[in-house]
Order: sequence, then C-alpha cells, then structure tokens
Amino acid sequence: MDQKFVENLITSSSSKIVMIIMDGLGGLPLEPGGKTELESAKIPYMNALAFQSALGLSLPIGTGITTGSGPGHLAIFGYDPFKYEIGRGALEALGVDFDLGPQDLAARGNFCTLDSVGVLQDRRAGRLATELSYKIIEILRTIKVDGVEIFIEPVKEHRFAFIMRAPGLGENLSDTDPLKIGVPPLSVLAGDDLSIFAAKKINQFVAQAQQLLINQTPANGILLRGFAKLPKVPTYLEKFGLNAASIAVNGMYRGVSRLAGMKVLDLPGSTLADEFSTLEKHWDEFDFFYLHFKKTDTCGENGDFNGKVNAIEEMDSYIPRLMKCNPDVVIITGDHSSPALLRSHSWHPVPLMIYSKVVRSDNISEFGERSCMKGSLGILPAKDVMLLALANAGRLSKYGA
Amino acid sequence: MDQKFVENLITSSSSKIVMIIMDGLGGLPLEPGGKTELESAKIPYMNALAFQSALGLSLPIGTGITTGSGPGHLAIFGYDPFKYEIGRGALEALGVDFDLGPQDLAARGNFCTLDSVGVLQDRRAGRLATELSYKIIEILRTIKVDGVEIFIEPVKEHRFAFIMRAPGLGENLSDTDPLKIGVPPLSVLAGDDLSIFAAKKINQFVAQAQQLLINQTPANGILLRGFAKLPKVPTYLEKFGLNAASIAVNGMYRGVSRLAGMKVLDLPGSTLADEFSTLEKHWDEFDFFYLHFKKTDTCGENGDFNGKVNAIEEMDSYIPRLMKCNPDVVIITGDHSSPALLRSHSWHPVPLMIYSKVVRSDNISEFGERSCMKGSLGILPAKDVMLLALANAGRLSKYGA
Repeated sequence: MDQKFVENLITSSSSKIVMIIMDGLGGLPLEPGGKTELESAKIPYMNALAFQSALGLSLPIGTGITTGSGPGHLAIFGYDPFKYEIGRGALEALGVDFDLGPQDLAARGNFCTLDSVGVLQDRRAGRLATELSYKIIEILRTIKVDGVEIFIEPVKEHRFAFIMRAPGLGENLSDTDPLKIGVPPLSVLAGDDLSIFAAKKINQFVAQAQQLLINQTPANGILLRGFAKLPKVPTYLEKFGLNAASIAVNGMYRGVSRLAGMKVLDLPGSTLADEFSTLEKHWDEFDFFYLHFKKTDTCGENGDFNGKVNAIEEMDSYIPRLMKCNPDVVIITGDHSSPALLRSHSWHPVPLMIYSKVVRSDNISEFGERSCMKGSLGILPAKDVMLLALANAGRLSKYGA
Repeated sequence: MDQKFVENLITSSSSKIVMIIMDGLGGLPLEPGGKTELESAKIPYMNALAFQSALGLSLPIGTGITTGSGPGHLAIFGYDPFKYEIGRGALEALGVDFDLGPQDLAARGNFCTLDSVGVLQDRRAGRLATELSYKIIEILRTIKVDGVEIFIEPVKEHRFAFIMRAPGLGENLSDTDPLKIGVPPLSVLAGDDLSIFAAKKINQFVAQAQQLLINQTPANGILLRGFAKLPKVPTYLEKFGLNAASIAVNGMYRGVSRLAGMKVLDLPGSTLADEFSTLEKHWDEFDFFYLHFKKTDTCGENGDFNGKVNAIEEMDSYIPRLMKCNPDVVIITGDHSSPALLRSHSWHPVPLMIYSKVVRSDNISEFGERSCMKGSLGILPAKDVMLLALANAGRLSKYGA
C-alpha cells in the first residue's frame, strides 16, 4: 500500500496512541533451551496487558538484516526505511546522540596524517586512540567560521562527527577524502547552486583546521565525507493526521522523532520517572506519544543480561501509570534486537504487543519472544505497525463501499 | 531489499554454512489426520538439531505455485526466481540432468511428421513412444557440425533436448517450430550479430537431420524451440562473499549450482556416503557447501511414501557426521514439495530448519511440516533463507547507525 492510499483513509478522532520503544528489546537465551532477557523478566503488568493485546514479532528492516537505531526507528514509525535513507554524515551525528536538527549539515570526519607538503600518508592517523582524539577535537572546537555554527563530536579512534548549522545549507557536496593516500585532500565542491555557500564555509573550516593541527602528530589533518542533512519525510500530521509528541532522553531519538514532525518534549531529568511524568503532563495536548527507553539496548550492547532484565522490569513498573492515562492504543516493542549474548544489535525480530479495546486479543498472558511467536500478528514488517495502531485507534476509514 | 543493499552489508568471516537440500522434501499425509513422510520418519538427529534451531516453512516461488527444480533451486540459493529466469531450452536440458555449462546453448526438441514436400503434418509425430525415440536419437547423434559440439538427450515421447557447445554462442534465435501444421518448419534466424554463428550451425544440423530421418515413420523431421543458455547470475562470491562448493550427483543440480558460481566437486560415487565423505574431504577449502539429495523427490514422484520415509531416515543418519565438522550454520530444507500422494511436485511450503549458535531457537524438538508451522520463521520466501544464513554466520554487518 502506498502512502497516498493510506493518507486518503485517515480520519480524525479524539483517540490517543502511545508507542513505547524499549531500545534493542529482542534478545537471546544465554544457552540453548534457556530464556531470553524478556522471558526472564518479572513483568506482571505487561503480561496482564498482553492478555488483552494482539502479539507478534516486528521485523525492522528485512529478514536477516541487523539495523542501526536510525533506520530501525524510521521503520517502526511507519516509514519505508529504504525510501527515506538517512545519509552517512547524518547517521554519524545521530549515532553519537547529537541532537541533529533540520538546518544541520553533517559529515563523517577522520583525523589523518599529512606529509610536509600536504600529501596524505595515512587516512586514519594510525587509528589514533580515542582519548588522544579528544584533545584535538578541543582544538577544532575553537575554530570560528562567519555565518555558520560548527559542532565537532568525538566518535571513536580517528573518527568524529562534523556538523555545520545555518539556514538554507545545501547538501550536494563532494568529499574532501580522496579515499587513497599519496595525494592531498580535496576541496569540497558544490554539486548545485544551493550548496555553494556550504562548500565555501566547509573549505574555510578545513583551511583553519589544517593551520591549527600543523604541529600535531600523527593527526595533523582532517578528512570529511558523506555530507548529509536529515532527509525530508512527511510529518506525522501529514502522513497519519496525528499531532505527535516525542519523549526521549538521547539526542539520536530526539533527532529521528523531530524528523517525523513530532514535538520533542522537554524533560525534567533523564529517568524513566521523568519520561512518564512528562507523558502525564502533556497527555491532553497530543494524539500520539512516542516514549523511548535506552537502557535495554545499552545493557544488551554491554553483554549485561541481568541489567537488561532489570531494565525491562523497571519499564514494567510504569505500565500502571500509563494505563491510568486511559490510552486507546498502546504499542510496546523495540526498534531492533540487542541480545546480551551478542553484545550488539542483531537481526532477530522484536517482540510486539498492540493493546486496544478493539484488538482481537490472543489471550496469551506472557510478553516474550516465544509467546509472541504464537501471537496473531505473526512476523509483521515494522513499517506496518502504525497502520494497525491507526486502525485500532479508529483513525482509518473504510476503503470502498 | 535489492541485491546492491545486501552486497554492501557483506562482511568477511571464517564461519562455514552448510545447506542440505532434500529434493521435494515437503509431503502430505496419505489420509486426513495422518502423518506426512517427514513426520513419519524416525529422525532422532534432525529432531535434536531442531531443538536448537529456528523452524519454519520455505515458500519456493509464491503462494500456490508449484515449481520445477530449476527455479526452486535458484530461489533457495537466494536469487529472485522471477528476475533470473532459466529459458525453456536450458530448463529442458537441466530437466534431463544434462550437466549444462556456461558455453552451452540448449533448445527443446520435438520429433515431427512432414509430408513429401516438407510440410508439417503433425508437430508431435503422433506422440511417438519414448522407446522409439531412443533409436532416432542415436541417428541424430551421428551428425557432425564443424566448430561445435552437439548433444541430443531423450526427454519423453516425442521430446528431446538439443545442446550445442562452442565458445561465444549467441542465444537470440528464432524457433524452427512454426507452432501450426500445413507449413514447413522455419529456418533459425539470428536476432543479433552475436547469434549469427549459432543460427548457421543449427540450420546445418537441422538440414542433416532431415536428410537422415527422411525414411523414418512417423518421426521424419525435427522442430527446435526456446533456444537458451543459462542466465548470467551474480556468483556466490560476488553476491554473498562466499567461496562455495556444490555436492550433487545429478546433472541438473550440478548445472544450477555451477550457475551460482559454486565449485562442483567430484564425487567418488553416487551414494549419500560418497556425498558426505566429499564434504569432509573438502571441509577446509570452502565457506559454503550445498549438498543435494535426490532420493526424496524420486520416491515422492513415484508415489512411494515409504521409500521417501526411508530416504529421509537415511539422511538423518548422516547428521552426526555433518555436526562433527562443526559447521556454524546448517540449513535443512527442500527446493519444493513432492508428496507421494500426488506423485508430483506441489505448491506446499517446505519444512525448513536453520541451526546456529546464535539463532533464536524455538525449542521444538520435532522436524516436520506441522511442527515447522509453529516455528519462529513463519512462512519464509525461499529467496530470503540465505539472508538468515549469512546473518547467523556473522557475515552481514549492521545497516545504518
């Protein structure tokens, strides 16, 4: 079904939808026959809600594909993750939780080693230790370029994120990285008129950087590539007729939800209690709330099975507060799996629960990987989850007579 | 997901994948409420492996579609069976187990009946008995044409496969079969420059054939149509980064796996023991092994329910030898179903098991049609199975940040 088809069916309603994303929710048992993190967690409130819900597994991008949080979120938000690709530079900035806005132009940066006449000797400056890169980043942060704001964020080893902020920056820009040694870094060239200003400002920044780094070893130069802004995507209001809000602590998720046109709410602090009090405070103002919880993914990536179990249990304890708001539709799932066993994101489909008063419930009183497998939603593409949410919220009218 | 998307995610690994194809594996009970061939088989080793595996059903081509082994294999090998079509002539040659190579141009042949002035009277020579056609094929096999090698293989009744082998043969060729009676057979015309040589050589062959058959009754002529070489498909190395080997007795499967760029291994004999000793012998040389077992399909097509059960049990007895090699990923499935009840290929999805140390296992200790239905893979398009194999083998990197 294409976007237009769905748009034509959107109808107004006073119903409210809440989407809870436990980042990296899906897991694996530590040994064959064992339980996953979610299956190990004591979650009486989610289990009770599961009984009244339809269960299934959400497939973020496609069979066997491990996704990053950017495309994973676009998908669960209902966007085709292949149609709306987030460019390399923007991903790099989102990936270090930079709160990327619509004016921001981002690039992936490398520290490099140049010889005395400016010819590239090492594109990665000997894979400089992360700690050493911090010092050089402080130097780069002193650079001022007229008419634009510049941000430099460390990534890992020789890598950093470069962000330039100004109104009307174009993104059709060539890389400074020649992708080979023995030649000097390139100047940025604009591929269209709209990008001429950005190219000029980036080249000014790079010239200053080379001057400031000239006596550093081994990182006496920088390379920039993959210039990108956030893609333009239809907003939740345009796409689904939803006045949507986002409740997320980390910049990456704030950035992706802003991209979808959600109002990114201010938080009094960074705990789950802060997130739920923000939900309660703004309950009357929006039709849709996206609430993001990072700890499940962090524990998964750290290989902390028990920590992930505890994080899931922490979320469970807030379900009564959520239900007290009387939401019409509740979606509980993740943007991808992050099994502690693998210490990384993974391709495994993600447990998914859709609660509403008119869902055809599966009467399964357990929210877990294996119980969701038995659910009526089957293995559902993440991008279709919002269609079910809208249907359950009475926000999709009949097609045809 | 397009091919390019997956290619960009391919990453190297020392892991090894084994794909065991029991040809025509899927079956049906002989009576309602009964067990299928696979469900009837005593397969303790596969059942034990199933407990540590993800189960599901592989859908070869699409809902309700019965596939031949050619497209069925392309699909389970990970190729879009609609994108890479194997032309009629090539299918005819593969279908009689001719070991079709990349230089070979194949066509579907009919014996026909011509009147005294060479006008077509019967396009099928009265559906000539298969035994009679053997004699005429021996006559055709005596024909020599300069610069090319020619093979003629019996199919059934009036049908045979025609194969011409030479470097650089084009395949843009018109049929000699006018598809109606009352007119003479046509000359082959080349549709492009590359095909002129082939057209000339085929016409030389046909002229000699008409001379040699002039006194035969009723088959005194031949018709050729559907000229085709094997399609060019990206190899396993290009597509998946896999150095792949094929272990198969029959020409058709050797041909299709060669098409995918697999190294077709020499076998000391034609038993399953020969296949597994070949696997062990070459274990260190390849990343991926395709092992084909024909007997399940042969029994299915012969209506031999018990024979198929025994064949499955025979395969089961080799699983310990397989697991001793310590594969990282094992896929056990079929290219299509061949229920003994139907004595033919069928459209039913095929039991599928994917084992690895990082699969989300279903903890179902039975490998069978109905138990696979309860598995977490659901009904999976055959062409996506390799994506899961690659993910489980640690051979797909993350998409986006």
